[in-house]
Amino acid sequence: MMKKTKSTSNPTVAEYVVARLADLGIGHVFGVPGDVAFPIDNAIEANDRLTWIGCSNELNAAYSADGYARIHGAAILCTTFVVGETSALTGVMGSKSERLPVFHLVGAPSSRLMKTRRLVHHTFGDGEADQFRALSAVSACACAFLTPQNAIAEVERVISAALSQRRPGYIQIPQDYALMPVVGTPIRGVPLAQAPTFSSQPRELDAALKAIMIRLAKAKSPVILPAFTIARYGLRKELKALLAATGIPFAACGMDKAVISESHPLYIGMYQGDASKPDVRKIVEGADLVLNLGGVLFGDITTSCYGYSLDPSKMVTVWPDYVEIGAAAVTGGRGNKTFGPIHMKDILVALTNEAPKFKTPSFPRPPAMPEAGASADRISYPSLYSRIQQFLAPDDILCVDPSTSAAVLPNLLLPEGVLYLDQPLWGCIGWGTPAAFGAALADPSRRVILVQGDGGHQLTANQIGTMGRYGVNPIILLVNNGIFGIEEIILLNSDSKKVKNYDQLAPWQYHKLPEAMGCRDWFCKRVETNADLDSALQQARKHPGAAYIEIVPEPKMANAAPPELVERMYQATLPPAEKTN
Amino acid sequence: MMKKTKSTSNPTVAEYVVARLADLGIGHVFGVPGDVAFPIDNAIEANDRLTWIGCSNELNAAYSADGYARIHGAAILCTTFVVGETSALTGVMGSKSERLPVFHLVGAPSSRLMKTRRLVHHTFGDGEADQFRALSAVSACACAFLTPQNAIAEVERVISAALSQRRPGYIQIPQDYALMPVVGTPIRGVPLAQAPTFSSQPRELDAALKAIMIRLAKAKSPVILPAFTIARYGLRKELKALLAATGIPFAACGMDKAVISESHPLYIGMYQGDASKPDVRKIVEGADLVLNLGGVLFGDITTSCYGYSLDPSKMVTVWPDYVEIGAAAVTGGRGNKTFGPIHMKDILVALTNEAPKFKTPSFPRPPAMPEAGASADRISYPSLYSRIQQFLAPDDILCVDPSTSAAVLPNLLLPEGVLYLDQPLWGCIGWGTPAAFGAALADPSRRVILVQGDGGHQLTANQIGTMGRYGVNPIILLVNNGIFGIEEIILLNSDSKKVKNYDQLAPWQYHKLPEAMGCRDWFCKRVETNADLDSALQQARKHPGAAYIEIVPEPKMANAAPPELVERMYQATLPPAEKTN
Repeated sequence: MMKKTKSTSNPTVAEYVVARLADLGIGHVFGVPGDVAFPIDNAIEANDRLTWIGCSNELNAAYSADGYARIHGAAILCTTFVVGETSALTGVMGSKSERLPVFHLVGAPSSRLMKTRRLVHHTFGDGEADQFRALSAVSACACAFLTPQNAIAEVERVISAALSQRRPGYIQIPQDYALMPVVGTPIRGVPLAQAPTFSSQPRELDAALKAIMIRLAKAKSPVILPAFTIARYGLRKELKALLAATGIPFAACGMDKAVISESHPLYIGMYQGDASKPDVRKIVEGADLVLNLGGVLFGDITTSCYGYSLDPSKMVTVWPDYVEIGAAAVTGGRGNKTFGPIHMKDILVALTNEAPKFKTPSFPRPPAMPEAGASADRISYPSLYSRIQQFLAPDDILCVDPSTSAAVLPNLLLPEGVLYLDQPLWGCIGWGTPAAFGAALADPSRRVILVQGDGGHQLTANQIGTMGRYGVNPIILLVNNGIFGIEEIILLNSDSKKVKNYDQLAPWQYHKLPEAMGCRDWFCKRVETNADLDSALQQARKHPGAAYIEIVPEPKMANAAPPELVERMYQATLPPAEKTN
Repeated sequence: MMKKTKSTSNPTVAEYVVARLADLGIGHVFGVPGDVAFPIDNAIEANDRLTWIGCSNELNAAYSADGYARIHGAAILCTTFVVGETSALTGVMGSKSERLPVFHLVGAPSSRLMKTRRLVHHTFGDGEADQFRALSAVSACACAFLTPQNAIAEVERVISAALSQRRPGYIQIPQDYALMPVVGTPIRGVPLAQAPTFSSQPRELDAALKAIMIRLAKAKSPVILPAFTIARYGLRKELKALLAATGIPFAACGMDKAVISESHPLYIGMYQGDASKPDVRKIVEGADLVLNLGGVLFGDITTSCYGYSLDPSKMVTVWPDYVEIGAAAVTGGRGNKTFGPIHMKDILVALTNEAPKFKTPSFPRPPAMPEAGASADRISYPSLYSRIQQFLAPDDILCVDPSTSAAVLPNLLLPEGVLYLDQPLWGCIGWGTPAAFGAALADPSRRVILVQGDGGHQLTANQIGTMGRYGVNPIILLVNNGIFGIEEIILLNSDSKKVKNYDQLAPWQYHKLPEAMGCRDWFCKRVETNADLDSALQQARKHPGAAYIEIVPEPKMANAAPPELVERMYQATLPPAEKTN
């Protein structure tokens, strides 16, 4: 799959790594420069296939790379030794958690300084500059510490692992080695879509397929749960073909919204345990076979805190790299009947060819968020959410920061082609703003709509300036309720007069931020009534540049979560003797 | 040293930990709340000796705690599981590097969720929620994972280690355990200044003292280098007594500026290797005995990239916990004659009593930064630095972010009692703004002057809103040159038209930030001429609230570093064959 090119004058290690990643068709590098990373920074600047995207800080750079990879398929992040990479760590770990291949390039001090144990900055001053290797290692599925000798082979190893697992790959280059020519024959890679990942073992694939077919042959009311990994591995087309061939209806779980367009006729709705609509819950929990395609994760956030009832023996899970049948997938354990290595793409294609066609049961079309809120009224949470429902247009990218809104917006019904970006497993408040920037840069043909809570915004708002600098045009809906609202919900605080001190925020004037951060030609507005919100949304959609709408809802707690969920989340934390159920 | 109190109804683990830290006299907790940390957050909110300081994000909280500890002696930081603590990591590692005891409290998911390997958020979704323990461990000198049974003993262990080493201590509490009563007899601690750390072994102390006295008896031209650790361990008074008793002159190295007031008559000036003034260099390098008190670190940044000449055989190093005589301390290795454990306080006191009195040589008083820049002219770097020199008042706290200015401002001569905060070893751009906030909160009687570069500011500026919220009144001098200036210096770029793309910044309108971030009654001004700067500085000093002066120097490279230093820093990075010296 790789072409080898011969060269009399080899590129330097930095030039080579950067070019090899550019071969994948990743066009941007998110980063913050730093002295020991200069050789890498310079190689990026000199490479005409790559554009440097200077970010406000490393965490924001990592989140932006994460958002970019969600749309583009992969991303590149570049930081400096220890202080840069550890500042990015939470973001890159999020990419590992939610399976996004982000290539993290890190510059290290000159090998001669490390070898002679010199005291260098960005260390503990003890001469042990390589004691930090384990840190970034946690955030990656493969790590390489390059030398001129190992660079070619190691870069292949990291790329292969990152693309196979759809998880970050880490590459560190000491400053002196970065400037030396690579030893060996440089490899010219292929674009992302053609890059090799891993392949199925034919006998295992065959056995797994037979086992699934036996289940399918007996099934009368199967249902499909497509996981987020379908999108990560670029298998939407294959899944759509399987749906068409089998007629099996599908529901989306909390981490897997809109993997397949929600306007698809076989789409039942969101399955979120107890929080599901009754008809969806009935179809999913009543199914005699659940095809979990890609490995839906049944975590606390996405299942109303384990409030679901799925019989493990009725489930077949096609994980990205193996198949698990009728086992304890639901409880997070490993099943007693597994087959692998199997690339899930091979299963999807084989089932499309071999699976029987089912008679699709009738079910109601999932409802849109109901209309709410008279024009003259103050904005409320229902009126805001109903307006977001109305506002969405086909092919928009809706990005929702972990926040009060993230607990409700999965209930939107998304128009054709709308992509839904969120972070329900890693769950970092503040991820949304920089991730929306990355998504906007990855596909300028789509409009990015960001729903951002104020608490989360204060963590990462400095990336607004980066948006302005690079001229992307998201529509930012900043919900200013003055508090960490989602936390008050979990705390069971329903009285806005008793908000915890620690859940209160500095009183930013959010709509003034873009100007202060140098954004030009942005449409910025602060709104309090539904009429003003309606008007601002219309103007934002027409505005060719970015828009930033500060939405101030009525001063009432945003208690949008059902009380039984809140109760269950809280109970999970109490000492056993105090538990009431 | 501890009083034990008996209680029929013990406090919960969270209540106990929080109260035990409050016993140390630390009055503030910097943090960002999070669901699994609620029991800790609530215990802090309920404790009337502690004030919660809600920060814009975890990294800023960590930097603020670091700045607070530099003034107060210790600090408390509180974050949530994994995503919170890893976001704080770079800041806490900085506190480890530069020796500041920051107690980091972290909430973890309920032990029952961990034990049953449930999929919880803020993890990789694999049921392995405790796989992250090694991360924060790197940032602390002692870590504890509390249960009701071990809480009392473990908290003592962490406090003792953190205060003995002046490094961070990490305490993690699962959400359910946090709500259970501690088992055993709660301990009531004593204030920081009386808290036990470690003690000297008498025979080792005696032997070390004798060895030093032999050296002192032979010495004709000794010099003292007091290290930053003198300040960390609260030993300024003891060092001043030693200076008075011996008459030995002292110089300050790059990490150790103003440990003893620069108006002290025995102060020679800054010793920074090749970058030192010739007369300082002559006295220090010509000394026949160098008393390195506290363990000066001779790192790249503080010695013009190892451009110093100190004979290891002439050096006695009193490390915080041992003594090293005539050995290879200078090269970062361990010497061949060491004594310990010895608390450096005991050495200082003993030497004050026993050391001979020397005839102090005559030396010129260290010069102030020279005056520069006519009133009507555009601001230049020399005119700015000269105005900072004039502006400083006794007892100010001058906080300098790692930036272009940080390479020059060590050459200021500080008025009586002025403290100088910087971060030359860890060297994180962006540290300054949140650290200045922490310092201001720790001692409202002093005025904090922050010199902040624009590049670094974009990393952490969101803490400006936190400053406004809590009403501190620093004077912020934001230097807006539009680039990462210090990086261009290291890159040897002296042509402002050839600035690397990656060193360019988003064009923030900095002086509008405080208003956008909700700061009221701030004095905010953008200045371009020396006259405007003079006027703004005067107004800022008179203004009771905070001041934010955006300083736009003439568009010329800030190449303030001597060319030979730049050359040496760059040479260190080149492959051997390309080295020219």
